[in-house]
Amino acid sequence: MKNILLIILMIAGLNVFGQNGHPSIMLTKENVQAVREGVKKYPLLRSSFDEVLNNANKALKIPINVPVPADGGGGITHEQHKNNYKNVLNCGIAYQITNDNRYAEYVKNTFFAYAKVYNTWQRHPKRKQTPGGKIFWQNLNDCVWLVYMIQGYDMVFNYLQESDRKYLTDSLWTSVINEQTVVNEKNFNVIHNFAFWSTAGVGMAGYVCGKKEWVEIALRGGKKDGKSGYFKLIDELFSPDGYYEEGPYYLRYAIQPLVIFARAIQTHQPELKVYEYRNSIIKKAVDCDLQCTYTNKVFFPINDALKDKTYETEELVYAVDIAYGNMASGDDLLDIAQQQKRVIISDGGFQVAKAIYEGKAKPFAYKPQFIKDGRDGNSGGVGILRTANNTNQTAVVMKAGTQGMGHGHFDRLNVLFFDNNKEIFSDYGAVRFLNVETKSGGGYTKENDTWAKATIAHNTLVVDKTSQFNEEWEEGEKNTPKLIYFNANSINSNNGRTVQVVSMEENNAYKDVRMLRTEVLFLPDNAESPILIDVFKVNSSSEHQYDLPFWYQGHLTDISFKYKTVTNSLKTVGDKSGYQHIWLNGEGKINNSNAAITFLNNQKFYTTTFWADSSTKVEFVTLGANDPEFNLRNEKAFIITEPKAKDQTFINITEPHGKNDPIAEFTIDFRPSIKNINLISDKDEVTAFSFEYKNKQYLVQLNYSNKQEFITIK
Amino acid sequence: MKNILLIILMIAGLNVFGQNGHPSIMLTKENVQAVREGVKKYPLLRSSFDEVLNNANKALKIPINVPVPADGGGGITHEQHKNNYKNVLNCGIAYQITNDNRYAEYVKNTFFAYAKVYNTWQRHPKRKQTPGGKIFWQNLNDCVWLVYMIQGYDMVFNYLQESDRKYLTDSLWTSVINEQTVVNEKNFNVIHNFAFWSTAGVGMAGYVCGKKEWVEIALRGGKKDGKSGYFKLIDELFSPDGYYEEGPYYLRYAIQPLVIFARAIQTHQPELKVYEYRNSIIKKAVDCDLQCTYTNKVFFPINDALKDKTYETEELVYAVDIAYGNMASGDDLLDIAQQQKRVIISDGGFQVAKAIYEGKAKPFAYKPQFIKDGRDGNSGGVGILRTANNTNQTAVVMKAGTQGMGHGHFDRLNVLFFDNNKEIFSDYGAVRFLNVETKSGGGYTKENDTWAKATIAHNTLVVDKTSQFNEEWEEGEKNTPKLIYFNANSINSNNGRTVQVVSMEENNAYKDVRMLRTEVLFLPDNAESPILIDVFKVNSSSEHQYDLPFWYQGHLTDISFKYKTVTNSLKTVGDKSGYQHIWLNGEGKINNSNAAITFLNNQKFYTTTFWADSSTKVEFVTLGANDPEFNLRNEKAFIITEPKAKDQTFINITEPHGKNDPIAEFTIDFRPSIKNINLISDKDEVTAFSFEYKNKQYLVQLNYSNKQEFITIK
Repeated sequence: MKNILLIILMIAGLNVFGQNGHPSIMLTKENVQAVREGVKKYPLLRSSFDEVLNNANKALKIPINVPVPADGGGGITHEQHKNNYKNVLNCGIAYQITNDNRYAEYVKNTFFAYAKVYNTWQRHPKRKQTPGGKIFWQNLNDCVWLVYMIQGYDMVFNYLQESDRKYLTDSLWTSVINEQTVVNEKNFNVIHNFAFWSTAGVGMAGYVCGKKEWVEIALRGGKKDGKSGYFKLIDELFSPDGYYEEGPYYLRYAIQPLVIFARAIQTHQPELKVYEYRNSIIKKAVDCDLQCTYTNKVFFPINDALKDKTYETEELVYAVDIAYGNMASGDDLLDIAQQQKRVIISDGGFQVAKAIYEGKAKPFAYKPQFIKDGRDGNSGGVGILRTANNTNQTAVVMKAGTQGMGHGHFDRLNVLFFDNNKEIFSDYGAVRFLNVETKSGGGYTKENDTWAKATIAHNTLVVDKTSQFNEEWEEGEKNTPKLIYFNANSINSNNGRTVQVVSMEENNAYKDVRMLRTEVLFLPDNAESPILIDVFKVNSSSEHQYDLPFWYQGHLTDISFKYKTVTNSLKTVGDKSGYQHIWLNGEGKINNSNAAITFLNNQKFYTTTFWADSSTKVEFVTLGANDPEFNLRNEKAFIITEPKAKDQTFINITEPHGKNDPIAEFTIDFRPSIKNINLISDKDEVTAFSFEYKNKQYLVQLNYSNKQEFITIK
Repeated sequence: MKNILLIILMIAGLNVFGQNGHPSIMLTKENVQAVREGVKKYPLLRSSFDEVLNNANKALKIPINVPVPADGGGGITHEQHKNNYKNVLNCGIAYQITNDNRYAEYVKNTFFAYAKVYNTWQRHPKRKQTPGGKIFWQNLNDCVWLVYMIQGYDMVFNYLQESDRKYLTDSLWTSVINEQTVVNEKNFNVIHNFAFWSTAGVGMAGYVCGKKEWVEIALRGGKKDGKSGYFKLIDELFSPDGYYEEGPYYLRYAIQPLVIFARAIQTHQPELKVYEYRNSIIKKAVDCDLQCTYTNKVFFPINDALKDKTYETEELVYAVDIAYGNMASGDDLLDIAQQQKRVIISDGGFQVAKAIYEGKAKPFAYKPQFIKDGRDGNSGGVGILRTANNTNQTAVVMKAGTQGMGHGHFDRLNVLFFDNNKEIFSDYGAVRFLNVETKSGGGYTKENDTWAKATIAHNTLVVDKTSQFNEEWEEGEKNTPKLIYFNANSINSNNGRTVQVVSMEENNAYKDVRMLRTEVLFLPDNAESPILIDVFKVNSSSEHQYDLPFWYQGHLTDISFKYKTVTNSLKTVGDKSGYQHIWLNGEGKINNSNAAITFLNNQKFYTTTFWADSSTKVEFVTLGANDPEFNLRNEKAFIITEPKAKDQTFINITEPHGKNDPIAEFTIDFRPSIKNINLISDKDEVTAFSFEYKNKQYLVQLNYSNKQEFITIK
């Protein structure tokens, strides 16, 4: 009956938003009393509220400060305006839970302080784009400001006089919305993570202030034609599996406005069924982002990603609370919430804290899976192989999806390897010191382009020492890799254990070069943890240099072949395409058909044994050359190189083994168990090879066009 | 009465040892019943025993294996013999607590297995010294083997038939003692950490087997003249403060036989009053070793030290249990025991577990202190400045004691700085991969001599690019630095806060160069944590190059002066004295009187601001050159250099500041607060300078010969 009424009202074009009362976004009027009770009862809700209250009380003690915008990221006015929006939200929540007017008064006074000066400010002096931000150097930060501020406004809405609300709407909100939708119209209507923040802020302001116009453009774009706006962003930027074009790190950033706005839409316009939109894509996106982490809590550092970002970040607290509390996600999300150690004081956070209190938490269900990329799900994707173990998980990631726009790296068929809660073969991530103003103003440094995006910075093949697509990302957007095979449930006929496989093909990154890479996670007999079998098949009609780097984490402890190190004078390995950033420390030629490199990481040994021919050589390198501002970390790699080949198949098997415990002073199994990798047959349709593990021989056959029996291991 | 009887018996030369019954070392007959009860009652005793029992049960399941010795450190036979002695002790304890004969039988069978083959073995094939070990490559490991084995024997002594005991004494123990005291007579009678293990094993065997002769030579040396043996070791190797000549890492190694043998002596010959020997030096040594750790649990990495060694190591579990349980150390030791998460199943471990159960644990009392070195306590020492805070402690260590024999480094006046649970200015420690056979057989690599011991590897002055004493450690043994002043209780007349100071002088490390270094830990007004003021005064009658390196941990984020980086081709900074191992990444000349270098470590900023003159330059370097086997870590330093000077005073102030939180995405106080360091007056007797902190000026005066008012800060 109520819904019908709403629909009728909508059809009538009346302003219905906000008619359900306030607050109405994360915390809703009907649940306020329950949350108040819950704060007393549920430990996680209580400690989370204590933190909010603590911060709110701190805010009350300091005079409100709305400085004229001056600094870039990390600078004083930048951080002050960030503090202001956090204080407003904390005080808004504190007001709702405690009913203490002092908090509401603080929020009101902050709004009045902004209202007084906002329209007197010019464009931000440190802006790098046109038109740039107003409160902050980037318009993006202004959008974030609005998302927080409007929630605070919603919290104190009923506390304010009608006249105050009118004043604020006229003097502040309308100007802010104009700033977002008109002055920065381009950001508002772009298909990009920026626009999630922009549309969410504008749309929620519409709901709270009762401005239907703002909601409409937020949902359907500036022209209300559905070619931009929130729903179009969801359509375009997510694959059917919830994968986000720019990768898990940027999804982390977009997910907060994605879920908050969804929550607001559900309350104000339930008839839009936003939770069910595109087969519940929002819920899938939350799950997908969490699946794109390892047990060290860090997001897979695909594309431009900061490697210290974990799912403990605030954005994911919002996402988990809403997914669990409002979208009925599984109880394994409670495991993540427990590790986040906080909830948002909200309807969803209440549900999470209550369920944890009731003992419903289950270990987060990490799953091996192929995550499809592209809006229709047919643009490659990310293959994840992993063991179910949450405490000592082995995980392999193959990245072979869309380019990921300007934040994408030239890293098709890149492979990451994790084990024992550590990165083993790693991705550099982005070159950026977030919020450190002395480092390129806290933004991406120039090495992000010259190094981090380059193909050689990744664990994938480099042809003729150039990057894929000649480092033109628009070229990379034109096509995608192809999934050949994925299966996490193959059974090894020999020992009956599960074999996990992903195989993908990329034929456009380099002209006239076909690349087909297959990763297999396999547990041989008498092995404690699975080994990683990597088969990289390259075909070309002309001769090329093929470099296959492995950026390992750890310290080299053994090299099976003769090598020479450079002792007195280091040179770079090349002069462009990222090679100008790496120093050549040593190199060796392989004279046997097998070679092995061992390194020690977190008290465990890792050995990569690889098949070689008479021309194979290995370079040992360290990152750090041509780095005039000391922006790079000194990461290390070994590069397996074929100097001149048309067709080439690399077979590399990496095994974790043994232990070196410096506290208890013992070492076991410092020698690898893999021996005698032997390529038996290598054709377009089939690669067959054998190897020994602990003196038992295994015969592996990859049947590239056989979906029934893609892999056999005997 | 009993004591008198004992003395009479001793005088009579009768064999009295072992008359008190068995077991009689860590766990004694009279306490066995209490420990059995305690295992049921006290959680820490229970979990520790569960671990022992678990390992004992594992041992029972596997056939006893006593292989012919073949491998070096970390190799298969090496680790097997280590396992054997651990299994014997675990099974011995399990037998005492459970009375289950199966454990005793295992111990007996292991002894019989050794007895059968021990005398058939030749010298160890992988020995590096002469005569070397028998069971292991080093005799030292054979000594350790005996210390464990004899405890196991003591545990099952009463289970064995008299005839078995006779057989084992004749066929095994007598041969083992001969191996230690005759074949390896040199190790047995040397004044070195080795001999603690050697004498402890032999002496305890004497007690357990009732062989007075063995005890006597263990206590008073091979010639029974007191010129070597246990008591002489204690006399020579410890300062009156309990500091051990080779430093805290090697004390950690010597401490286990030191305390176990003391425990055995106390039981078997209480009249020797070993616990009170040299003013309770054993108890002081335990405390001293713990004081030589930072809150990250790691020993200060002075001299040859592995940096992953913490007080959780087994040796310190023995030390803490005996010091607390038998020597009446303070309740703050229980804090360490709690972090060790285990006790030895013994009289002492029982006391520890009981006291923790009774809630007696107090936070470990870290104290700023000057630890005197040298047997008479007048050979310099280690100055430790530190805040009392155990969770976010600031600590400064100045090393200026004896050379430390062959494991000593050429690092007089070296300064280490710790903050926020991390190393900030660090010492490389030793170049060694313990028990990793592929890395120089698990021993010290050659870079330990060419790099780790060199002066440039430390945070102290290098004169003319050569190491102290021309890297001849015997030269270094001839004299020591001098303590000028230490006080952890000075009061700043300005703000009334405590100022901690250590000042030391070294005049022999370089010919005709007098070096006087003063460290001050000082909390200015409005500072969150103390700043480190470093004043390094050098005087010479001739011109020298002075290099003062700071090996920092972290990533550079700001440099206040112009510098040039090397981009395409790295060269080493020098060709000897350690300089051949460091690459020159960049350098700059200081054109102002002050310069500052900022780096980020564990989300906190650190800035070193230093006073400079027109010839001061700074080099930025990375370790790793001339490293043919990839043994070195790529540590980083900035080196403040005066290319040509006679007298020079370096003033460097390092301040922790701000925070950079990449999860919550905020940055505060990335800029330092120290400004305008100005040298006002610098004479033999006085150095006076001023600086500003948060716009307040401080005037510091160091009065080198005034013990009443050494420092004033106004």
